[in-house]
Amino acid sequence: MGYNDPVQLRTRAIGIFDSGVGGLTVLKEVARLLPSEDILYLGDTARVPYGTRSERTILKYSLKNAAFLLRLGIKLLVVACNTSSAVSLPALQRENRVPVVGVIEPGARRAAELTRRGRIGVIGTEGTVRSGAYQRAIASYARGEVEVIARPCPLFVPLVEEGWTEDPITYQVAHRYLDPLRREGIDVLVLGCTHYPLLEEVIREVMGPEVALINSARETAWEVKETLAELHLLRPEEGGGRRRFFVTDNPEKFIKVGRLFLGEEVREVEEVDL
Amino acid sequence: MGYNDPVQLRTRAIGIFDSGVGGLTVLKEVARLLPSEDILYLGDTARVPYGTRSERTILKYSLKNAAFLLRLGIKLLVVACNTSSAVSLPALQRENRVPVVGVIEPGARRAAELTRRGRIGVIGTEGTVRSGAYQRAIASYARGEVEVIARPCPLFVPLVEEGWTEDPITYQVAHRYLDPLRREGIDVLVLGCTHYPLLEEVIREVMGPEVALINSARETAWEVKETLAELHLLRPEEGGGRRRFFVTDNPEKFIKVGRLFLGEEVREVEEVDL
Repeated sequence: MGYNDPVQLRTRAIGIFDSGVGGLTVLKEVARLLPSEDILYLGDTARVPYGTRSERTILKYSLKNAAFLLRLGIKLLVVACNTSSAVSLPALQRENRVPVVGVIEPGARRAAELTRRGRIGVIGTEGTVRSGAYQRAIASYARGEVEVIARPCPLFVPLVEEGWTEDPITYQVAHRYLDPLRREGIDVLVLGCTHYPLLEEVIREVMGPEVALINSARETAWEVKETLAELHLLRPEEGGGRRRFFVTDNPEKFIKVGRLFLGEEVREVEEVDL
Repeated sequence: MGYNDPVQLRTRAIGIFDSGVGGLTVLKEVARLLPSEDILYLGDTARVPYGTRSERTILKYSLKNAAFLLRLGIKLLVVACNTSSAVSLPALQRENRVPVVGVIEPGARRAAELTRRGRIGVIGTEGTVRSGAYQRAIASYARGEVEVIARPCPLFVPLVEEGWTEDPITYQVAHRYLDPLRREGIDVLVLGCTHYPLLEEVIREVMGPEVALINSARETAWEVKETLAELHLLRPEEGGGRRRFFVTDNPEKFIKVGRLFLGEEVREVEEVDL
């Protein structure tokens, strides 16, 4: 089965991988936009988080994840992890025959479109910020002079996973991380980590109504739809809509935390050894 | 080289492994108590944290770490990770010929000795708490009726790694986690995670002077000394005191964060692939 029979290809699933559970925010948006597509999701929960690891290690893990999903026969691969997109997207695009969509470019493009003042904030993990990927991507889409102010927010992920998404403590942490960005006069803020959409309300309140928030998951879903449409690979309306979840460790925790992300029960989670 | 030439054995190093940087609190106490011992330290920074993973995965990683240090020729192995001690100590003791010291038993014994009311609190990672290892160990040392109240504190590790060890936000998180334990009327609290000694002041203030805090790292160092003394394997005073650090990923971050734990510069860090 090669990538040369469009009719058969259309009914294949979309593959999504993430370092863990966070990529479910991307799955949710893809499923909302493309309800009849089948989706395979892999969370590398034995090696999460990627955000603090070196580029070499992130690349190694990402290639393994991609290979697993490709063996299952997918028509498009989504790298739903910002850190992995930042580090490994070129290698994944080079080495694979299916189109590969990351979560950096869609958010970066939207940010470059939306900014009026040319001052864009980006928040993410250490790995994402350190890679400079958002900075480069935004510069490539910007029409005028654009300054990108990026900063890591390492406590946001554990706060979300603790379920403290509307907690006074989380507001204080958000102020600590975001007040300096607000003072920089940014008018667009990219939520450059899959966990952050769960803090959208907190971040919106801290940043105020003047600052547009970019949800990378949502932008990525649009990119997936456009890519499939261009290649005539959208699934016909009838049937489909199946989900299958794979994790490399601890399916119980994935099911428990996954619910926060998906807003519904996560079913059919299989453990695999990569 | 077997474990049968005590004279040669004495000059061998002590091996310490941890999931990451936290075990440096154990190294620090061992080095303080046994300044002339050589120490090899391995931090499995490519797979940290262990606290949220399944037992099967924690065991797999722990066996790999132990094998690495044993190949370098050590006289005693310290499992400086609470989660790994909780899950993999029996297997490590069974499969290796050198004595293996974990961080659970020493703290549990001390807690059982110190309690007057028979109500002991334990805080640690999810994995440590879920394993029930402290609960079992304390019960085995207790002379009378003892109740153990254990709870995970998942935000403590990222707060320490962020360097917010004396921060108002950290006090609030500590109150959230610890107030229920205080209300339970415990008189001893075991800091069952290697990161927590860095929060000793915060925890002491929240718990009040009535509650004795057990620093597992310190108790473990005493156990190492006693074990070596019993086996006549303490190093002669002259020479020694060398340190070598190995990490499976990101030595830069290990050096940066390690400083917080060790209170001094971390030198000679080598990256290895396990």
